[in-house]
Amino acid sequence: MTTLAVDCMGGDHGPRVTLAACRHFLESHEQAHLLLVGVPDSLKGFHHPRATVVGASEVVAMDDPVEVALRRKKDSSMRVAIQQVKDGNAQAAVSAGNTGALMALARYLLKTVEGIDRPAIAYPLPNAKGGATTVLDLGANVDCSEQHLLQFAVMGSALVSALNHVEAPTVGLLNIGEEQIKGSEVIKKAGELLRSAANSGDLNFYGNVEGNDIFKGTTDIVVCDGFVGNVALKTSEGLAQMIGGFLKEEFSRNIFTKIAAIAVYPILSSFKNRVDYRRYNGAALLGLRGLVFKSHGSADEVAFEQALNRAYDAARNNLLERVQARIAHARPLLAAPDEPVPNNDAVTA
Amino acid sequence: MTTLAVDCMGGDHGPRVTLAACRHFLESHEQAHLLLVGVPDSLKGFHHPRATVVGASEVVAMDDPVEVALRRKKDSSMRVAIQQVKDGNAQAAVSAGNTGALMALARYLLKTVEGIDRPAIAYPLPNAKGGATTVLDLGANVDCSEQHLLQFAVMGSALVSALNHVEAPTVGLLNIGEEQIKGSEVIKKAGELLRSAANSGDLNFYGNVEGNDIFKGTTDIVVCDGFVGNVALKTSEGLAQMIGGFLKEEFSRNIFTKIAAIAVYPILSSFKNRVDYRRYNGAALLGLRGLVFKSHGSADEVAFEQALNRAYDAARNNLLERVQARIAHARPLLAAPDEPVPNNDAVTA
Repeated sequence: MTTLAVDCMGGDHGPRVTLAACRHFLESHEQAHLLLVGVPDSLKGFHHPRATVVGASEVVAMDDPVEVALRRKKDSSMRVAIQQVKDGNAQAAVSAGNTGALMALARYLLKTVEGIDRPAIAYPLPNAKGGATTVLDLGANVDCSEQHLLQFAVMGSALVSALNHVEAPTVGLLNIGEEQIKGSEVIKKAGELLRSAANSGDLNFYGNVEGNDIFKGTTDIVVCDGFVGNVALKTSEGLAQMIGGFLKEEFSRNIFTKIAAIAVYPILSSFKNRVDYRRYNGAALLGLRGLVFKSHGSADEVAFEQALNRAYDAARNNLLERVQARIAHARPLLAAPDEPVPNNDAVTA
Repeated sequence: MTTLAVDCMGGDHGPRVTLAACRHFLESHEQAHLLLVGVPDSLKGFHHPRATVVGASEVVAMDDPVEVALRRKKDSSMRVAIQQVKDGNAQAAVSAGNTGALMALARYLLKTVEGIDRPAIAYPLPNAKGGATTVLDLGANVDCSEQHLLQFAVMGSALVSALNHVEAPTVGLLNIGEEQIKGSEVIKKAGELLRSAANSGDLNFYGNVEGNDIFKGTTDIVVCDGFVGNVALKTSEGLAQMIGGFLKEEFSRNIFTKIAAIAVYPILSSFKNRVDYRRYNGAALLGLRGLVFKSHGSADEVAFEQALNRAYDAARNNLLERVQARIAHARPLLAAPDEPVPNNDAVTA
């Protein structure tokens, strides 16, 4: 039995979407148990033998500052859901709430894995090969050192090996050219560090990749700092929306184009399905001593269920242990060169 | 009469594309004169009363390192084209060659405008409003200070006012959230500086924007460092290619979908035209004491002609003088706060 703690109050739509997704998820996963965390009144219509309501009196709003989530709303559904993971009642938590608050609460309650300075957000983007490219970090860390980028590469490799069953996934370092001499000082140093990690068997490093390689699917994983990753993700969302809007406009221009749209509906629908972001919903918060997955705030039932699926697969495939094992193996490289690896684990914990 | 110097040898296709574009350009611009720069043998078939061949014995290859372009190939078509601008024989130069080499040569030969530390590359991207969002920098500068970002904002405003005839174009600062507290240290300081510039009438600063705002068309101009801008541009190219590829695949899946494609051809073609990058070809190298435009290396005839159009419009609308005037007006802000503005202009030239 694998148990997920679900923040049922998070996201733009709250329980209406999250509960519908939970019901469908339970029907298709016979070994799953859910802890439905939220304001009891909002959840009272839901009954399932493998679901238990866990009460929480408060809700973190989508625009609440991190401080409010951390210090004021101490009985929020988001916090209580993460607490379930910390207490060992659930193997993973899922929330569609405010990303900043979720990361801050997860970090505060769960703490980071030894050897990791900063957790990262990893998200799969569809690629032209029909698979997904996992990109991290997507916004948790704005100023990253080369050490952080190496940590992201190691954690991303653990994630892809757990969820996509690729033993040695390829890692690309996001840069503005393929040549080693390209990029900022941090990126050049990160390139050296990633090459060392490849030599010591910690990574399958491909080399530098450029923005277009994300959607080409050149590597399984693309590593970048959170500022760059967030801009790349949101720029892509904006472009996809614009293209979708243009296509819709062209097909609804007049009565003839509308008839044409009906005629080619199966084709357009198959196309739409291939670029449907909902199939890729569910970002992993990596580097914490517990599994937390973040759904897009605007997720509908299909998308939220996909985030539940990913959290469930991650828990079943021991993502946490894989991250810890890979980080432990890469420890000699993760310590800064002029800083000896401490023998006493408590020092860095 | 406005004269452009054209590097006819640059780009993936060389004279076959550039000369065809030049002929078409001359036919539609009766006041234009072209200096066709290149290896004379390659250009000998071209005759036009308003075109003059300027010989150059060498060609900068697309993969030549900057050093080769600067120090070894001293008689390259790219260099000779820029030299025409320096010598006053042409009002702007256009090349589809290697971006790094073009920027380095332009900077070496033309020097930067007073008050500008680093030139930037500005590129228009189509937006959902039917216009274009001008993004800079797109790769010339990987590590930028807040001062550089302010310089980009001022130069971008001059470009958009010259080419799009908007007197006070809006400027957005690319960030990972709209709130002033978001982003890296440099971005937060840049936000303060841009707000000061808005207060002193140097800019029409909108505030922070996110990646999706580029294609939404929230502001006329989006300012970012060259690393982020390059990643955003290339990620968009990758996504557009993937979506285009999927659409093509769906319509060529079998005989029925192929017939459907023919039936809806006018609709697909109108759609394609709206997202056609060729309509937006022609990046401006801003901040130099002369106008230089960069065409995409893979540009075809239509795209290269569009780059010629943009260079021509920029020259006719006094882009150079506009940049200089705006920079001069913003000088008090462009000097670092703890560094007094020198009285002697030669010091900073």
